[in-house]
Amino acid sequence: MNRVDVLMEAMPYIQQFHGKTVVVKLGGHAMVDAGVLDTVIQDVVLLHYVGMRVVIVHGGGPEITQKMKDMGKEPKFVAGLRITDKETLEIAQMVLVGKINDGIVSLITKFGARGVGVSGNDGNILFAKKMGAKRIKIDDLEQDVDLGHVGEIEEVDPSLLECLLENKYIPVIAPIAIDKRGMSLNVNADTAAGEIAVALKAFKFINMSDVDGVMNAQRTRTYHRLNINEAERLIEEGVIVSGMIPKIESCISCLKNGVDYTHIINGNNDHSLLLELFTHEGVGTMITRNEQ
Amino acid sequence: MNRVDVLMEAMPYIQQFHGKTVVVKLGGHAMVDAGVLDTVIQDVVLLHYVGMRVVIVHGGGPEITQKMKDMGKEPKFVAGLRITDKETLEIAQMVLVGKINDGIVSLITKFGARGVGVSGNDGNILFAKKMGAKRIKIDDLEQDVDLGHVGEIEEVDPSLLECLLENKYIPVIAPIAIDKRGMSLNVNADTAAGEIAVALKAFKFINMSDVDGVMNAQRTRTYHRLNINEAERLIEEGVIVSGMIPKIESCISCLKNGVDYTHIINGNNDHSLLLELFTHEGVGTMITRNEQ
Amino acid sequence: MNRVDVLMEAMPYIQQFHGKTVVVKLGGHAMVDAGVLDTVIQDVVLLHYVGMRVVIVHGGGPEITQKMKDMGKEPKFVAGLRITDKETLEIAQMVLVGKINDGIVSLITKFGARGVGVSGNDGNILFAKKMGAKRIKIDDLEQDVDLGHVGEIEEVDPSLLECLLENKYIPVIAPIAIDKRGMSLNVNADTAAGEIAVALKAFKFINMSDVDGVMNAQRTRTYHRLNINEAERLIEEGVIVSGMIPKIESCISCLKNGVDYTHIINGNNDHSLLLELFTHEGVGTMITRNEQ
Amino acid sequence: MNRVDVLMEAMPYIQQFHGKTVVVKLGGHAMVDAGVLDTVIQDVVLLHYVGMRVVIVHGGGPEITQKMKDMGKEPKFVAGLRITDKETLEIAQMVLVGKINDGIVSLITKFGARGVGVSGNDGNILFAKKMGAKRIKIDDLEQDVDLGHVGEIEEVDPSLLECLLENKYIPVIAPIAIDKRGMSLNVNADTAAGEIAVALKAFKFINMSDVDGVMNAQRTRTYHRLNINEAERLIEEGVIVSGMIPKIESCISCLKNGVDYTHIINGNNDHSLLLELFTHEGVGTMITRNEQ
Amino acid sequence: MNRVDVLMEAMPYIQQFHGKTVVVKLGGHAMVDAGVLDTVIQDVVLLHYVGMRVVIVHGGGPEITQKMKDMGKEPKFVAGLRITDKETLEIAQMVLVGKINDGIVSLITKFGARGVGVSGNDGNILFAKKMGAKRIKIDDLEQDVDLGHVGEIEEVDPSLLECLLENKYIPVIAPIAIDKRGMSLNVNADTAAGEIAVALKAFKFINMSDVDGVMNAQRTRTYHRLNINEAERLIEEGVIVSGMIPKIESCISCLKNGVDYTHIINGNNDHSLLLELFTHEGVGTMITRNEQ
Amino acid sequence: MNRVDVLMEAMPYIQQFHGKTVVVKLGGHAMVDAGVLDTVIQDVVLLHYVGMRVVIVHGGGPEITQKMKDMGKEPKFVAGLRITDKETLEIAQMVLVGKINDGIVSLITKFGARGVGVSGNDGNILFAKKMGAKRIKIDDLEQDVDLGHVGEIEEVDPSLLECLLENKYIPVIAPIAIDKRGMSLNVNADTAAGEIAVALKAFKFINMSDVDGVMNAQRTRTYHRLNINEAERLIEEGVIVSGMIPKIESCISCLKNGVDYTHIINGNNDHSLLLELFTHEGVGTMITRNEQ
Repeated sequence: MNRVDVLMEAMPYIQQFHGKTVVVKLGGHAMVDAGVLDTVIQDVVLLHYVGMRVVIVHGGGPEITQKMKDMGKEPKFVAGLRITDKETLEIAQMVLVGKINDGIVSLITKFGARGVGVSGNDGNILFAKKMGAKRIKIDDLEQDVDLGHVGEIEEVDPSLLECLLENKYIPVIAPIAIDKRGMSLNVNADTAAGEIAVALKAFKFINMSDVDGVMNAQRTRTYHRLNINEAERLIEEGVIVSGMIPKIESCISCLKNGVDYTHIINGNNDHSLLLELFTHEGVGTMITRNEQ
Repeated sequence: MNRVDVLMEAMPYIQQFHGKTVVVKLGGHAMVDAGVLDTVIQDVVLLHYVGMRVVIVHGGGPEITQKMKDMGKEPKFVAGLRITDKETLEIAQMVLVGKINDGIVSLITKFGARGVGVSGNDGNILFAKKMGAKRIKIDDLEQDVDLGHVGEIEEVDPSLLECLLENKYIPVIAPIAIDKRGMSLNVNADTAAGEIAVALKAFKFINMSDVDGVMNAQRTRTYHRLNINEAERLIEEGVIVSGMIPKIESCISCLKNGVDYTHIINGNNDHSLLLELFTHEGVGTMITRNEQ
Repeated sequence: MNRVDVLMEAMPYIQQFHGKTVVVKLGGHAMVDAGVLDTVIQDVVLLHYVGMRVVIVHGGGPEITQKMKDMGKEPKFVAGLRITDKETLEIAQMVLVGKINDGIVSLITKFGARGVGVSGNDGNILFAKKMGAKRIKIDDLEQDVDLGHVGEIEEVDPSLLECLLENKYIPVIAPIAIDKRGMSLNVNADTAAGEIAVALKAFKFINMSDVDGVMNAQRTRTYHRLNINEAERLIEEGVIVSGMIPKIESCISCLKNGVDYTHIINGNNDHSLLLELFTHEGVGTMITRNEQ
Repeated sequence: MNRVDVLMEAMPYIQQFHGKTVVVKLGGHAMVDAGVLDTVIQDVVLLHYVGMRVVIVHGGGPEITQKMKDMGKEPKFVAGLRITDKETLEIAQMVLVGKINDGIVSLITKFGARGVGVSGNDGNILFAKKMGAKRIKIDDLEQDVDLGHVGEIEEVDPSLLECLLENKYIPVIAPIAIDKRGMSLNVNADTAAGEIAVALKAFKFINMSDVDGVMNAQRTRTYHRLNINEAERLIEEGVIVSGMIPKIESCISCLKNGVDYTHIINGNNDHSLLLELFTHEGVGTMITRNEQ
Repeated sequence: MNRVDVLMEAMPYIQQFHGKTVVVKLGGHAMVDAGVLDTVIQDVVLLHYVGMRVVIVHGGGPEITQKMKDMGKEPKFVAGLRITDKETLEIAQMVLVGKINDGIVSLITKFGARGVGVSGNDGNILFAKKMGAKRIKIDDLEQDVDLGHVGEIEEVDPSLLECLLENKYIPVIAPIAIDKRGMSLNVNADTAAGEIAVALKAFKFINMSDVDGVMNAQRTRTYHRLNINEAERLIEEGVIVSGMIPKIESCISCLKNGVDYTHIINGNNDHSLLLELFTHEGVGTMITRNEQ
Repeated sequence: MNRVDVLMEAMPYIQQFHGKTVVVKLGGHAMVDAGVLDTVIQDVVLLHYVGMRVVIVHGGGPEITQKMKDMGKEPKFVAGLRITDKETLEIAQMVLVGKINDGIVSLITKFGARGVGVSGNDGNILFAKKMGAKRIKIDDLEQDVDLGHVGEIEEVDPSLLECLLENKYIPVIAPIAIDKRGMSLNVNADTAAGEIAVALKAFKFINMSDVDGVMNAQRTRTYHRLNINEAERLIEEGVIVSGMIPKIESCISCLKNGVDYTHIINGNNDHSLLLELFTHEGVGTMITRNEQ
């Protein structure tokens, strides 16, 4: 395939996406490898320059765990759920905002655009309330477990993001929210990204993690395009299992709240972002509304 | 070369050209073949969507001559120079504005952008005065020859073009100027394009005709990059000959009046516009200021 | 009547029309005489300078027919309807866009304002689809006749016109539309003008041709002011006949779709435009909504 | 002369003056007759609607004197100069701002435009300092006479006027200034008008009083057009005498500080404002820079 | 209480009121004492600089009566209602616009902000119609009494005020309205202020006169905060009497038409405006909607 | 002193500072005590609401050292200068951006305004180059010491800050810069704050640390106001010693580059920011240009 063919293949997509908002969720695992992140940000900058309004929301679980261990602090879990005590929150904030977020912004600079790193308390983007105790079965006993400084998003104020996008900056958002008294809370990055996509009336929400898209349980088949009905039926019929289900549900929730298209792609595949957006077959899974 | 490599090769150019103004001169010969024009306009629309402000200036000599013949009117020349009488001017205007210009705008629509066709009298873009009689040797006698309704550009008012570019239209300009009394005059399309590039403080002026770039007299070598000094020396030393010289001089004049880069490319080569702008080696000749 | 009386008589109209949009349809016949056109455009420029937003839509039938004859091409008609084959379309486009349209713009320059000539494909102003075959009785037999490259307007996009008016240009529109594939189509100038007046939410639509306004069949009486009901009753009762009816119907259609006032005037009467707009009695016919 | 001729004669002036600023000084005497004022304001509103930015500055000497008499307060003069004591100032302010200014604004409303009456303290338009004592010869003795609350203009801040003009209001200004401590001062209306014209970079300054323009001492000849040199020579040679000289000097001062044209006309002549601006011969005197 | 405490107490109010519109009615009696007015305007300027959009509406009854007496004109009353004949109207206008209004603007300048004095005819702010004859019992006979040039407000056009506020001016409004024919009419200042507050969708309407707020009939108790229901009940139960009732009703009318808060304060109490707005207990009465 | 006196004392300062830009440097030591920081941010929010454009630049030395110790990493110094190796830089970034910066933004939210935390790589605010090796005497030997990832500011791009201020956000800046390759560098917070004040053409630069202002060596006298000459003479004469000198020099550098006023105050003194800005005597030292 020669150069011209590639550019001509990309052209209708570039036209269609021009001036549209795209929220890219960068999963924690995809960000461990510096080379991978480099490539992803290169793609993001290209999207920016061909006229899209790109917003990045990132996670950071693995790096937080690693940093806690470096600092001799043992992460605490109950029935697989992390308990975020005050010290854990502080470490999470430092890693998310002071390391990962800042690192992404520096890469954006390196590739020639201008990023602005924010967390949910900047410009009051993400308001949350402390999550209530969770009813969890431990040793066959149902117990109420307080997960600590973890928030449930109540309100998204997109005005700072609009202002930055309007002025040609790429916003990079860490999943920290603020409550009404000014206290920080850890929030789930997938949820935050979805809520932000909805608040910005995004054209696309792209969930980039370390899986190749929606596959059947046997991992023998990848679905490149599904609509809500199809996705829900596959879950119901047990074709799709466990780990992938929350990601699909978050996509469906975006679609039901006004986002036009959602994608699940693997950040570890070289330039998967470009290939998913600018080639006919794509590389991951696109989930759409039923009528599209 | 795979898709990602192509897009990555193009990326730094897309960044560098973002928001910049490019004036493309479409030579009459390049426009005779409908397939060629189709490809050229496809490229123009791509440039538009990746963020450039593109302006097209076109000629139309061959089509004017053809239409005159169809109408049983014999084109008149003295010593190789066309004499533009009133009837010739009318035919030229109809062909340039009513056929070629309109055709280009329709192609822009077809490929998904919005064009606006204008001639120099729209918004008073091109003011000219009637060219004075030329002293020409005919049959060994020097004579003053009046070329008729042919204009010398006196002033370019870019405000309509700025207004259209600001509103995301692609202006398409026919080489007809207006004099102070409101009379139309035929002007040279190369000159008009260069003057418009200067008035718009264009980043690039691209002269697209049916030659492959600057070559030596023997046509054994193509120069891909020259600065003003080098180009002038090649002319002086006779390495470059006749036909190519006016094109080079028009590029040099643009450069001396504020245009940043000039290119000479062959419209008949498939997608030469994209390849010249978005690949490392290019396909034609780029002429730059000495210090660049 | 002295100067001051004239200006004082005009004053309330100038106030009332200030900042309002007026679409003037210039009929083909009114444009054959250069002196007439000169006067009309002088009036248009005055309207512009006293604060109205003027848009011109012109026809060109007689000049197209003349040019076809000059070129040795016989216009073809079936039962009085012109058949627009490919060659006819090309000639029509050249005459409308390259000659008449350009000529009007030059006159606007001559009288001190700035015009911009466009056809319906510029800025995608007029989208049309090819008109279906017409059922016509020929030699007592009903037949389906394909009129050729003739369009039915489907959609008017006024954004380019708004942009030009905002920037103090006078748009001049040729009745050529574009279909979704980028092909040109001839459209009826009266219809185009009416649709454009509606799309621009015009205050006034002025149909200027070569008749003096609405008259009874015997041409013994001119109606200076009618409302929709009155006009419809006169048609029903046979007081008004044939030729005038389509013009009246086009005015009524404008009124029913939001245009405030419509006028039918004769361009051959010196400065009829000024006199109709700026004097108490007017010179043609004003048709209004019933409640006005 | 028929209607069309009048409008056509006015057209080039309307074009030339479009968007230009005109400061009209209304002399106190011209405002005594209600009918005259009516006509003048009608003209002003017409100028407004044909696109000029009109500013009115008015005086009010005769009405102030009248009102003082009504209130049983004897105006006091020394060697012909009015002494403005505190009570006189209060009456002057009430008459100028509360009666004349308000009356002009009401007339503007009556004729269909929107005026805003201000005095020099509104928006800090006119800053002045108390005028120093004047050396005057009284009974053959030179004495220092304090004229009271009379100001010398130090600074004009045109921003409120610009804001009003931008929003399509007609500002009407009473000749009251403010000093740095917030105290009011009476200022000469001619001077105030001239300074305001300069601060607004006005195109025209029109001094409308009750004389017909510049005449020779014998009143046998009216000069319709003078440049600075000619006017200065006529004064030097004694051709023009006394009363007219300050008006001419104020015009010359405007011209030397950037105003393009100045006029002296008689408000008592019906519609002199329109006739001076929109007819070839005019009715008063236009004084221009030497090179115009 | 030290400085910091004062500023900290004020802080939440400053935040809450930031960018909000406040209409302050200055009652005639509060303006007789120059020292009082000085203090009030100082407060107004402070409100302006901490970010509120302040509009002043003033009365002037006592000064009008005084000036009439000075001029030897006896004010005329029927059953306690003033009859405004033509001469009275003229004096009222001169006093309100030329003296009081101008004086307030000068004080605003003195304290470092920029005011603009207007009356209801400026920018057509207040349109009124002549009030119909009032049925009044005189000597036990019901008679129709024509109050003269007194208006009932029909329409408020806030656009001039919005334009002035937008440009950081403090508008000062005299209670003179204009009718459709351009004639001035005296209007009640309380009513005018309330209507203006409603038209501006004001956050607060503050009625400043010479009473300390809402008190019971015995003047033994001041109500610092009432809602509409409470206020209406107090009136119904006869706890509040006569003079205060119209002021309360005007507040209630504002609240029912969209104003958020209304206050009744005494201008004679030093800095009552600041103390009411920026301290917890306030100094007058705040009347709110029931649900607030 | 009662409430009104306090507000009246503050009023002229509020007026003078309205719309002006103030850069506040928060020294690391002033931020250790949470109560102190609370008070400082309360003051900052008040400044914001009375109309100033406030920018915060913070340090964080003590907290970085503390966090390094917590993580078992020994800070390394050569001749008193910190050596910033890769790990130290990472910790510094996490503490500055992820903890201190975020904490300040949360406080701004808590007190009712909207902050945006940025570091120098956001929006390319601070470009730096790695500082060259320093020539330092160690054990009587001059050696070149590489201080590690420490930057010298080369360029400040204030456009992101302007954009945030324009939209009513309070920017909070961490002293991390970026080099041309996208690598982070630690920069001195005092220097960064000064350079930002200059780039923003700030009205005031306020250095808030834990000293009470400029004092003589014996700490018996505090200078409340100095101009550049006076300050330089006091240094020259040895009246002011060591620790204070760099702070003064940074103020002088600001003044010489366009900042209007500079202040040195002690953040530990309750509400020193308000008292310095809004009272006559102030609490720290103001250094001004000589002519002020």
